[in-house]
Amino acid sequence: MNAPARFFSTLEPLRYVGRDSRDPFGFRWYDRDQIVLGKRMEDHLRFAVAYWHSFTWPGGDPFGGETFLRPWMHGSDEMDLARAKADVAFDMFRILDVPYFCFHDRDIAPEGKTLKESNANVRAIADIFAKKMESSKVKLLWGTANLFSHRRFMSGASTNPDPDVFAYSASQVKNVMEITHELGGENYVLWGGREGYETLLNTDLKRELDQMGRFLNLVVEHKYKIGFKGTILIEPKPQEPTKHQYDFDVSTVYGLLCRAGLEKEVKVNVEANHATLAGHSFEHEIAMAAALGIFGSIDMNKGDAQSGWDTDQFPTNVEDTALAMYEILRAGGYTTGGTNFDAKIRRQSIDPEDLILAHVAAMDVCAHALLVAADMLKDGALQQAVDDRYAGWNEPQNKAMLQPGTTLASIAARAEAENLDPQPRSGRQERLEALVGSYFR
Amino acid sequence: MNAPARFFSTLEPLRYVGRDSRDPFGFRWYDRDQIVLGKRMEDHLRFAVAYWHSFTWPGGDPFGGETFLRPWMHGSDEMDLARAKADVAFDMFRILDVPYFCFHDRDIAPEGKTLKESNANVRAIADIFAKKMESSKVKLLWGTANLFSHRRFMSGASTNPDPDVFAYSASQVKNVMEITHELGGENYVLWGGREGYETLLNTDLKRELDQMGRFLNLVVEHKYKIGFKGTILIEPKPQEPTKHQYDFDVSTVYGLLCRAGLEKEVKVNVEANHATLAGHSFEHEIAMAAALGIFGSIDMNKGDAQSGWDTDQFPTNVEDTALAMYEILRAGGYTTGGTNFDAKIRRQSIDPEDLILAHVAAMDVCAHALLVAADMLKDGALQQAVDDRYAGWNEPQNKAMLQPGTTLASIAARAEAENLDPQPRSGRQERLEALVGSYFR
Amino acid sequence: MNAPARFFSTLEPLRYVGRDSRDPFGFRWYDRDQIVLGKRMEDHLRFAVAYWHSFTWPGGDPFGGETFLRPWMHGSDEMDLARAKADVAFDMFRILDVPYFCFHDRDIAPEGKTLKESNANVRAIADIFAKKMESSKVKLLWGTANLFSHRRFMSGASTNPDPDVFAYSASQVKNVMEITHELGGENYVLWGGREGYETLLNTDLKRELDQMGRFLNLVVEHKYKIGFKGTILIEPKPQEPTKHQYDFDVSTVYGLLCRAGLEKEVKVNVEANHATLAGHSFEHEIAMAAALGIFGSIDMNKGDAQSGWDTDQFPTNVEDTALAMYEILRAGGYTTGGTNFDAKIRRQSIDPEDLILAHVAAMDVCAHALLVAADMLKDGALQQAVDDRYAGWNEPQNKAMLQPGTTLASIAARAEAENLDPQPRSGRQERLEALVGSYFR
Amino acid sequence: MNAPARFFSTLEPLRYVGRDSRDPFGFRWYDRDQIVLGKRMEDHLRFAVAYWHSFTWPGGDPFGGETFLRPWMHGSDEMDLARAKADVAFDMFRILDVPYFCFHDRDIAPEGKTLKESNANVRAIADIFAKKMESSKVKLLWGTANLFSHRRFMSGASTNPDPDVFAYSASQVKNVMEITHELGGENYVLWGGREGYETLLNTDLKRELDQMGRFLNLVVEHKYKIGFKGTILIEPKPQEPTKHQYDFDVSTVYGLLCRAGLEKEVKVNVEANHATLAGHSFEHEIAMAAALGIFGSIDMNKGDAQSGWDTDQFPTNVEDTALAMYEILRAGGYTTGGTNFDAKIRRQSIDPEDLILAHVAAMDVCAHALLVAADMLKDGALQQAVDDRYAGWNEPQNKAMLQPGTTLASIAARAEAENLDPQPRSGRQERLEALVGSYFR
Repeated sequence: MNAPARFFSTLEPLRYVGRDSRDPFGFRWYDRDQIVLGKRMEDHLRFAVAYWHSFTWPGGDPFGGETFLRPWMHGSDEMDLARAKADVAFDMFRILDVPYFCFHDRDIAPEGKTLKESNANVRAIADIFAKKMESSKVKLLWGTANLFSHRRFMSGASTNPDPDVFAYSASQVKNVMEITHELGGENYVLWGGREGYETLLNTDLKRELDQMGRFLNLVVEHKYKIGFKGTILIEPKPQEPTKHQYDFDVSTVYGLLCRAGLEKEVKVNVEANHATLAGHSFEHEIAMAAALGIFGSIDMNKGDAQSGWDTDQFPTNVEDTALAMYEILRAGGYTTGGTNFDAKIRRQSIDPEDLILAHVAAMDVCAHALLVAADMLKDGALQQAVDDRYAGWNEPQNKAMLQPGTTLASIAARAEAENLDPQPRSGRQERLEALVGSYFR
Repeated sequence: MNAPARFFSTLEPLRYVGRDSRDPFGFRWYDRDQIVLGKRMEDHLRFAVAYWHSFTWPGGDPFGGETFLRPWMHGSDEMDLARAKADVAFDMFRILDVPYFCFHDRDIAPEGKTLKESNANVRAIADIFAKKMESSKVKLLWGTANLFSHRRFMSGASTNPDPDVFAYSASQVKNVMEITHELGGENYVLWGGREGYETLLNTDLKRELDQMGRFLNLVVEHKYKIGFKGTILIEPKPQEPTKHQYDFDVSTVYGLLCRAGLEKEVKVNVEANHATLAGHSFEHEIAMAAALGIFGSIDMNKGDAQSGWDTDQFPTNVEDTALAMYEILRAGGYTTGGTNFDAKIRRQSIDPEDLILAHVAAMDVCAHALLVAADMLKDGALQQAVDDRYAGWNEPQNKAMLQPGTTLASIAARAEAENLDPQPRSGRQERLEALVGSYFR
Repeated sequence: MNAPARFFSTLEPLRYVGRDSRDPFGFRWYDRDQIVLGKRMEDHLRFAVAYWHSFTWPGGDPFGGETFLRPWMHGSDEMDLARAKADVAFDMFRILDVPYFCFHDRDIAPEGKTLKESNANVRAIADIFAKKMESSKVKLLWGTANLFSHRRFMSGASTNPDPDVFAYSASQVKNVMEITHELGGENYVLWGGREGYETLLNTDLKRELDQMGRFLNLVVEHKYKIGFKGTILIEPKPQEPTKHQYDFDVSTVYGLLCRAGLEKEVKVNVEANHATLAGHSFEHEIAMAAALGIFGSIDMNKGDAQSGWDTDQFPTNVEDTALAMYEILRAGGYTTGGTNFDAKIRRQSIDPEDLILAHVAAMDVCAHALLVAADMLKDGALQQAVDDRYAGWNEPQNKAMLQPGTTLASIAARAEAENLDPQPRSGRQERLEALVGSYFR
Repeated sequence: MNAPARFFSTLEPLRYVGRDSRDPFGFRWYDRDQIVLGKRMEDHLRFAVAYWHSFTWPGGDPFGGETFLRPWMHGSDEMDLARAKADVAFDMFRILDVPYFCFHDRDIAPEGKTLKESNANVRAIADIFAKKMESSKVKLLWGTANLFSHRRFMSGASTNPDPDVFAYSASQVKNVMEITHELGGENYVLWGGREGYETLLNTDLKRELDQMGRFLNLVVEHKYKIGFKGTILIEPKPQEPTKHQYDFDVSTVYGLLCRAGLEKEVKVNVEANHATLAGHSFEHEIAMAAALGIFGSIDMNKGDAQSGWDTDQFPTNVEDTALAMYEILRAGGYTTGGTNFDAKIRRQSIDPEDLILAHVAAMDVCAHALLVAADMLKDGALQQAVDDRYAGWNEPQNKAMLQPGTTLASIAARAEAENLDPQPRSGRQERLEALVGSYFR
């Protein structure tokens, strides 16, 4: 293959060029050092590039094969290719000047002849990463194990009817968790791509939920054992590839965690397109995670509003994104989490530049959205409207209804005695939407 | 209005006429005394007629008004009309010879000038019910309070920003719970029609979840206080009327219950059409409820597979219904639950006979499905296939992985030491589907 | 009821206040006299207010009744109420200073005891409109007949199995067409709310398509007979209220028109929410209509991206709206069409101000979107990218392939002789999306 | 690879074993010589096996690779593999004893180094087919060209911005059309997998529609030139792989055909799963095609009712299938068309037997459905109900309304003069659904 430095014709890290520039290779909104709500923009957004879509996906879809013909995908020595891929990847991190990246084990290193060799391959590439991370400022937002691509996982990983797959998965997860820890990763993610089922006819639902709960406990115990301080995250998705996934949405994951006794230990990595496929808005899933105390990180992308599968497109809509950013800010912002672009260029976007430009545009959308969301928060008018709406709950007799001691009977008695006849008050949705519109610039 | 006995031209209770009959006014499959798996068919199915769709809905839809012109919907004395409606309803229960019915408070009695009067109206009609129930064999499967139709509930009931609506709801629920208890109802249901939100912009999600959890606790405490032995049920629905409902699906309700500390106290009433609107099959929701230990009862109907709202049609497909019945049987059948027809005739079905025939056909579909499901269970071949698939988990070292003591590290070490290379085995979906097909008759 | 002037506390027509204003009762973007691409903004956008959602809908939904309690909806003399409603409506037109409005016959006047009286009622109110239109500058964008609300239309209007309904519909349409003509209406719209079916089991599809085609021809013939110079428009919708509507989407309507020989006579009124319910983006439907030569007008609103029914919300997203506006501009802009707000405030938005503010915000969204779309067009970079992509088709041998004379065999022979091996070129979607983003301000 | 005879352990053609058999390798319903409505069951159903899903798909999905490891997919000489695949395929046709098969050019033969070589490869395998077809009784239902898998087609085939792809496609189609003709194929199908677009931003919709219309005309002209007597079919699909496909559904294709002047020349191949993805029931699409005079053939499969992509599952539901079969019978049955299983076993169904059993079960579902549909037709009660519903249209004055000569004004005048007040009659949906249920056995 070609020398990796040649893959991208862009050589210098991209810079903020300002709103009036039309240069597609500069940031119009993402000004990493700009202070927003007392923090650098970069520290708010904590952007990460995902290894899989950008460097491992060849451009296929269910009706067609490879379109990209990446040089690092064609050759005989797979470890050589993996090293070449790493060169390209870190070159892109450098060009985009992003603070983080994310990876699955199978993205970065080929499967070996044995489990041990597979794990060793991952470690070998991770060692290369370690050096590259030292010499650049890019950090690891999270690592994860790919427990869904190989045919051994066709019926699940931890929820597989075959216990050997459970054990195999344990080995793979342990390896990536430890590598993530060693690389200073800030989170470890579990995406249960095939933790679900195709048909109840061949499935023992309860047993599989138990297996999954047990696996999560093993992971959390191992986290403590190795001293990993990062967050364990589950990434909800309602379906695809499986007919039903056990980690359907944020609320479902919360229930799973309660069932496994882990609701204080594990958080969620919320993906925009997974949210919409589950029948929710992206901001809903973030707000719900925050309300349940399990908000962790996000996978930023967007789905096609009329397509019923995971299109994983780069975000383009500032207004939609601002509503998500606002919920993140209301939740206090990220702690260990970040904004990972789990987004892929369209399979027709075959030029190397397409990869760069897609990220630039998406980073700008997020930066613009952050500024809008910060204004929404600073201005406080939206929050005030919410507070006003619930103000009645501050009165002592109303507060009391939410406290132990009051009973249904006592509340009912008062309602009847006072002849309550509550009059509805406008929800004012349109004027609040207009208010949101007024923050755009 | 006309004398109620005249509303239906059918006068005699409908009877089993056998499979070869073409009489639409007889049951071809529902033979209530037939013994299935050691129990009378009637005792398996525990059919209930729903008051609302059958007697209270005038046939309107979002683009058009009343089509049915029921005599009991037009008159000046609303309590008179309510009594006439009760006559027609009990006449239909008698004709269909169903063991149960279900109602909302506002279905059976008009709203009064005050909360107290509204509650009294419900009680007055309930007194009539009590007498009618004595003289017929129909029983109450469940009662519930309508906390969504009146404009005071436009922003929710227990989750309303206005605490007075919370209190008002408490009074209404207390009244219906007590009436349900007095009428010997076997369950009390909560459907949170407007417990959800339209826009996050005016909503405090966490506060509303807290209010809802608190309300559920008040209800459960009241249940014990009054000595009600029935089951408290929540009916999940993903959306409609609200953009997002807090009781989205079975798994979400499980999480809510855990959060409120009520996962041992409250169960779910699973509706077919709500399941499919949530992106699940009906059988999935039943199986999930069973796996989580919260299966209670069902609302039997079907949605239109291509329509995105609650069409609440009568079930027509034996094969689909059999898969649901199979999961109910696998879960041990109903305890306090039953098969409530939360189904409405199409608004063009304006003849009184349409109401009767829709129920007859649906009861036949369910009875037929029960027979198929019972054969599936008795034969055991499906269960055997599932057991075989998970058989590896019976081996001691595999069982051990699910027990405390093993660690991720110990499992991983063994996987590597044994050089595990699990080979996939066919999920055999098509042959299991064919097997299901072979039980149909 | 109250004097209409009192319904809205806003008394003066609303004015452009500029982008930096936070006054919700002023336009931040809609500056009607601003020249955009050589035309006044007002003349580009041709805003219309819809009578039905704003003045006739009481705030009900399938699970709850009236929330708005509008004074003109409660009283004993229906014609008096209709006149009061007209006063409020024209007051709102004045306050918003919109150039157009739209109506259904049943929105503006009550049904009478006979068909003749119903038609006369419409005419009586139309006479009031005529006077009000003279003294204000508001014009009629289009009129239409409501052939779906009353129970007589429950099985369709022109496609009804009962020929008397066809005849009844003819009378109603004739009346409204003539009134529309007399009021100077610029279009006449047909929305086939119940021209469709619920179940094929009771439907003769071909016959109903024939009836519909015939009715359209009658309408077009009548247009010429009365000298109406406006455009006849069909408004596509895929389903709801019916399971399947015959006017599913733009392409389906085109096929219907071809079948009826009317593809040069009738155009479409494209609604955003109907487009998305049909599985299309709004801009797709506009572009398709333009490509097929049948683009007429639009119903501006938005759906909820996760809800499966017609939510008819006011548009809030400038970026989405700009893509639609761009397609309208590319199609040459409106001729007789306009931007009709077929949008309703949420049923919780019960204050009179909500109605005003929703329109103001939506008009601003459209005005902002128009400015962006105009820049996209003026700049030309998007169009250039498209032209470049198809440039190969300008070469003579390629042009020839699209002309009579070439054959499959001759083209194939050349392809083989020249050993064609076409290399894909990037579709550059992300960089074009980024380019679109750069026009926002 | 193994000798093909060894791939399936089943050696003898499968036979009808009757309803009471539990042998999964025998037909319980499909009794090919049984006379139904005067015709052999085989001649009604005209089953075809599809080459692609059964022999060419390796079991991958968007999140995982090959699971099947078919012996003919792994080797160095691609033409050798293609011959081995043909052996297995014809062995399966023999075992299933189906009368037809279908193929894409790329299913049966590998792409060569040049277009000419690719075409020659197809011809070489077709020659093998010709011999195998002679010695067996299997016939070709239809052939088609794969114009979507290779990256050259990533932006479409006939609608590609690059005219060379148009020419390349012409060569490929010409080759497969001629081979189809020589093999005695009864139809030629066009599936426009990538005839659509991903984003309007890079698309000239009108130009692409023109290109597509031109290509269709070239194909039809070539049909006449070579004397092919079969039917040219288009297979509608709403989206996937593209965001929007130009052949969205039956009605859209009808519009396209009208635009190209081909509505008498080209028919449709209706697929169940494509119908449901387009928001229609399968039977709707068949009935619509029949009403428009373009019904040709079907691709039999089913989608998952809760999944938003093409799952292409084998049909399992007799009741759903019977409604489709009923519409086919009402349309007069197939002429050149047939029942092609465009269905794939799940990727976890990795045993050779799974392939056989899936087809057996599906053929039984169709045979059972045919019997039910035939009874529905013979009995005539459904048709009678429809005829009764429209009976009013047989009256002279009502017939006249559909004929030239009457005008909107004359109809309106009569409606008013006669004071028409049409009373709705029950649509009787539930009783008709019950009636359908009564035909099941």
